[in-house]
Amino acid sequence: MRAIDWRDDGAVVIVDQTRLPDRTTFLVLREPLQLVAEIKRLAVRGAMALGVAGAMGVALGAVRAKERGQDVLTRAGEAAELLATARPTATNLAWGANRALAAAHAGAAAVVAVALEIRDEDVEANRAIGNRGADLLQGARRILTHCNAGALAAVEIGTALGVIVELHRREPLLTAYATETRPLLQGARLTTWELGRAGIPHCLVVDGAAAGLILAGEVDAVVVGADRIAANGDSANKVGTVAHALAAAHAGIPFVVAAPEATFSPGTATSADIPIEQRDEAEVLGFGSHRIAPPGTKARNPAFDVTPAELITAIVTERRTVWLGRATTGARPVTRVRPA
Amino acid sequence: MRAIDWRDDGAVVIVDQTRLPDRTTFLVLREPLQLVAEIKRLAVRGAMALGVAGAMGVALGAVRAKERGQDVLTRAGEAAELLATARPTATNLAWGANRALAAAHAGAAAVVAVALEIRDEDVEANRAIGNRGADLLQGARRILTHCNAGALAAVEIGTALGVIVELHRREPLLTAYATETRPLLQGARLTTWELGRAGIPHCLVVDGAAAGLILAGEVDAVVVGADRIAANGDSANKVGTVAHALAAAHAGIPFVVAAPEATFSPGTATSADIPIEQRDEAEVLGFGSHRIAPPGTKARNPAFDVTPAELITAIVTERRTVWLGRATTGARPVTRVRPA
Repeated sequence: MRAIDWRDDGAVVIVDQTRLPDRTTFLVLREPLQLVAEIKRLAVRGAMALGVAGAMGVALGAVRAKERGQDVLTRAGEAAELLATARPTATNLAWGANRALAAAHAGAAAVVAVALEIRDEDVEANRAIGNRGADLLQGARRILTHCNAGALAAVEIGTALGVIVELHRREPLLTAYATETRPLLQGARLTTWELGRAGIPHCLVVDGAAAGLILAGEVDAVVVGADRIAANGDSANKVGTVAHALAAAHAGIPFVVAAPEATFSPGTATSADIPIEQRDEAEVLGFGSHRIAPPGTKARNPAFDVTPAELITAIVTERRTVWLGRATTGARPVTRVRPA
Repeated sequence: MRAIDWRDDGAVVIVDQTRLPDRTTFLVLREPLQLVAEIKRLAVRGAMALGVAGAMGVALGAVRAKERGQDVLTRAGEAAELLATARPTATNLAWGANRALAAAHAGAAAVVAVALEIRDEDVEANRAIGNRGADLLQGARRILTHCNAGALAAVEIGTALGVIVELHRREPLLTAYATETRPLLQGARLTTWELGRAGIPHCLVVDGAAAGLILAGEVDAVVVGADRIAANGDSANKVGTVAHALAAAHAGIPFVVAAPEATFSPGTATSADIPIEQRDEAEVLGFGSHRIAPPGTKARNPAFDVTPAELITAIVTERRTVWLGRATTGARPVTRVRPA
């Protein structure tokens, strides 16, 4: 099962992640605008999946244009613009869209070919990230991750969860801690589901419990994904991430960001230049259809936070390990993290 | 409206906080065991309210014993034992129960008198804590608090929220950030409700958003309550607290614990000696009656975490300010916190 894929009749197929784990629903999308709507709704999400989605959305525009006798380059360009800005923080969307768009002068089939190439590269990149992360964290048996940087956030395998799966394949883990990840509960719904399918012993905690567990010495390492990485290493990821990084730094355990090269945003110097998507306050004020807060309550709902480079041990990509130099000096340093 | 009070016909009256803000329900309790059950269910909660509850529960035991011609001292002693251990982390329960029990040799009326004395002292103590905390944080206009250390956690006024209310009375606040406080959402349900009644501009955020807001310079100070304070200043409070303390330390803003003297546990040397209550995993796996996580998922549900003394700026009680010496050196230090 792939989180996002291309169908030979010129459609994108995604798993509707808003309905997991209760229901596994596939959505077939034929227009770029449909895909943009599903991206905004988080039916498809996660850095790597969004890179593929960006490219496949442009492919939809190109294929529909060709079918309708319209100009492929124009329609592909319009689609790329819509897709690149569907979510302001995720850099992979624009990356995928622009790469597909660059082939549009050669026609719709060329755009589709690029989208499929990105899809296949993603699978390979995830495998490489998993291996590299597992090399780095060898010996860690209790790992904590936030949100869902798993197969559902990619095409297959996943980034942070790919590292966890590979660590477990090499030597069984004691436990993988999944934080629930309010407000949309991707950890509670998706990460637990993936860990269960992978046969990894796991345990769900509320987001606020992570720091206490880390300071109490119950976690050997933290590994998370990223949605955008600035040139200096500052990394934007799902809201709640930086609290785990602060705790990991205080406890002296490794805090590793697992992300594809495409997540680096060379034009973004530091976190100050990373726009943070502000989502609807209704996600915070209630829970599904049930309202929690008293009527009239206001909420702020940033979708991401930024972990400063100084709190990160290393970033692992499909090509390299970027050491950011935070030493791990805690009572239980599983991996002595030092620049190679 | 008082969160807990004594009725002249020999009953304890509490507001059922599990139903707020949807419904304001008063429960009338006549037996110590009924009160113990409501404490476990968190219908009544918060450090100061639990001190009063401990004493009033013993008073229930004494009054019922007298009515039934039983030995007042024996029944009061049994009640004190039940109440003191109803929740393992909260030290105020045992404190209140033991203080009431010490009067039992003089008869039921004497026990009731002690319970009422503790209730009245609580109101005064809260007022003093609010004043002391507001002196400390003068000039801070954007305050973040966690869980509910408000009037509902006391008899009236509240500790951390008492500080916020007093700050706002002196000079209007820009905003009070309430964290929702998963799993039981005391912040989303109770703190927002109290802030609204107090006319203070406020904003609800998920627990994971707090650290990012603090690091981004959007918060001037953090003030929280405590359920148990060790002799060295390590403070146990609602799970999620220590992440905010780590962020405050990193940002260089004050992190203040507001709690009555009774919260100090002289027999507890450090956090290593603080037992952490583990609650039912169902609170994490679901949300009210709605299940979030896939079937078979396990969860851990610690009710508290411990903030090490080194992350705390100061503890304010009704009698003194205990400086723990963490300097506030951030870009926006509202209060230069230095030992007096």
